Amino acid sequence: MIFRDEAHTVELLSEAAFEGIDIAFFSAGATRSREFVPAALAAGARVIDNSSAFRMRADVPLVVPEVNPDALTESDRLLAVANCTAIILCVGIAGLRTLGRFSRLIVSTYQSASGGGAQMMHHLEEATRAYLDPTHPTPAPIPGLPEYAFNLFSHNTPILENGYNDEENKVIAETRKILGMDDLPISATCVRVPVLRAHSESVTLEFDGPAPSVEDVRAALDSAPGVTVVDDRALNHFPTPRLASHQNDVLVGRIRQDLSNPNAVQLFLCGDQLLKGAALNAVQIAELALEKGFIKS
Amino acid sequence: MIFRDEAHTVELLSEAAFEGIDIAFFSAGATRSREFVPAALAAGARVIDNSSAFRMRADVPLVVPEVNPDALTESDRLLAVANCTAIILCVGIAGLRTLGRFSRLIVSTYQSASGGGAQMMHHLEEATRAYLDPTHPTPAPIPGLPEYAFNLFSHNTPILENGYNDEENKVIAETRKILGMDDLPISATCVRVPVLRAHSESVTLEFDGPAPSVEDVRAALDSAPGVTVVDDRALNHFPTPRLASHQNDVLVGRIRQDLSNPNAVQLFLCGDQLLKGAALNAVQIAELALEKGFIKS
Repeated sequence: MIFRDEAHTVELLSEAAFEGIDIAFFSAGATRSREFVPAALAAGARVIDNSSAFRMRADVPLVVPEVNPDALTESDRLLAVANCTAIILCVGIAGLRTLGRFSRLIVSTYQSASGGGAQMMHHLEEATRAYLDPTHPTPAPIPGLPEYAFNLFSHNTPILENGYNDEENKVIAETRKILGMDDLPISATCVRVPVLRAHSESVTLEFDGPAPSVEDVRAALDSAPGVTVVDDRALNHFPTPRLASHQNDVLVGRIRQDLSNPNAVQLFLCGDQLLKGAALNAVQIAELALEKGFIKS
Repeated sequence: MIFRDEAHTVELLSEAAFEGIDIAFFSAGATRSREFVPAALAAGARVIDNSSAFRMRADVPLVVPEVNPDALTESDRLLAVANCTAIILCVGIAGLRTLGRFSRLIVSTYQSASGGGAQMMHHLEEATRAYLDPTHPTPAPIPGLPEYAFNLFSHNTPILENGYNDEENKVIAETRKILGMDDLPISATCVRVPVLRAHSESVTLEFDGPAPSVEDVRAALDSAPGVTVVDDRALNHFPTPRLASHQNDVLVGRIRQDLSNPNAVQLFLCGDQLLKGAALNAVQIAELALEKGFIKS
């Protein structure tokens, strides 16, 4: 295939394919990662895995370079890229750790079709076309997915014993791991919305004591890596998924004191699920490893 | 005009039009209500006003018949229909008052285009058509509205001094008034999503003490008026706006203990913004007044 005017050979994946590879990026789902990551590691590659297969293993750091760069050490050969919603959340709030200790986090998400892959994006477009034009063929339903045209629904992953679905449990566990706060009380409600790309999150962040002022929050976010503050109250200009699409930064806005709790602030975040929520973060981990001298360029 | 096979005369509104009218329904916005409601009251009509004009006046009850029927007394001539988001929220949680005293409420909304009227619904459809088909004409933008096709945005009402927008402040104030809990701490984040009809709400409800069990919450909601529980964890079947559209009841699901606070429960609600959020509630107020004998049928 041609990428940036240069020809590259795409080969069928085999265990032998990892010979001489320094960094292997995996982005084909947990099943494929479980099958082939051991061979990549055995061949001496450093593996950066976008799937959920190894994320919660104690010996696998979950690195978001803007948030926990120190989690990456030289001996780490297998590195996992966190869940997209967790990454966007962590980047959005990490800059506020200097203002006080987090004591509770509540998030309701507005997740885009891209989180379900190209198939779900295509399905949303086709279902919407069919809704708007009865002569347009209705696409085959995706198993387990409610009607998607002009509709939203609770994230269609299995509900676990605790009443939270798989996505919500991932967001909770991975956010704790990334922030290095194993006991941080977190609640998540994950909802899929009819947006093609970029996830949004409504966040209540409680501190162990009175919340910092809006001015201090804004200043801390302004200097936080990977964050762009979009918060113009006079113009009513705040983050939207279309504004966040194709952007590397997480957009943060609606910064305000929580009227229901003097220890809390409210935020609204949008981040490109395919970039910072996945591919960009994977590349940033490789860049961080290079920068730290763990991989020779 | 013909309504249900019967011819009706539609007349231009004038102050004289209210002679002999028992119940006058107003549903043409706050400006029109402020202009003509006094004449309707002077002519002896009982007024049920769908606008925000009089909602927070101390002498105007904000009646949601399933929630606070006692707020309607014989001497009340002017009755207001609350904000759609507040009504749906109150109906969804009112049945839980028997299980403990509410101590805090946090809501993030997913509000549909219908809340912005027929014009906004049409705009969403046309903007989506233009997005999917570049040959389709792009509709004229609605002033102050971000791109709406496959996008969502913070509710486009002015941001007040406290950092909350006008819609959020309405939801907070009206929910307190409907529940009769003037000091209930409430936080709201109101977001417009690309859904045509029916609002959704992600709710964190805290109690003054340990939260009731999921079983008790489900039982209380099962017997709550105006509520249909849609909460099948095994089938991953929960409320969606398309499921709630054209239904009188508010759908409640995702019932679970809040993992971040032993005193809280989490819920996800959907309600038809045009029915229970507006027209249906107005008619129900009239029915309640008839039932109480305040209006002779």
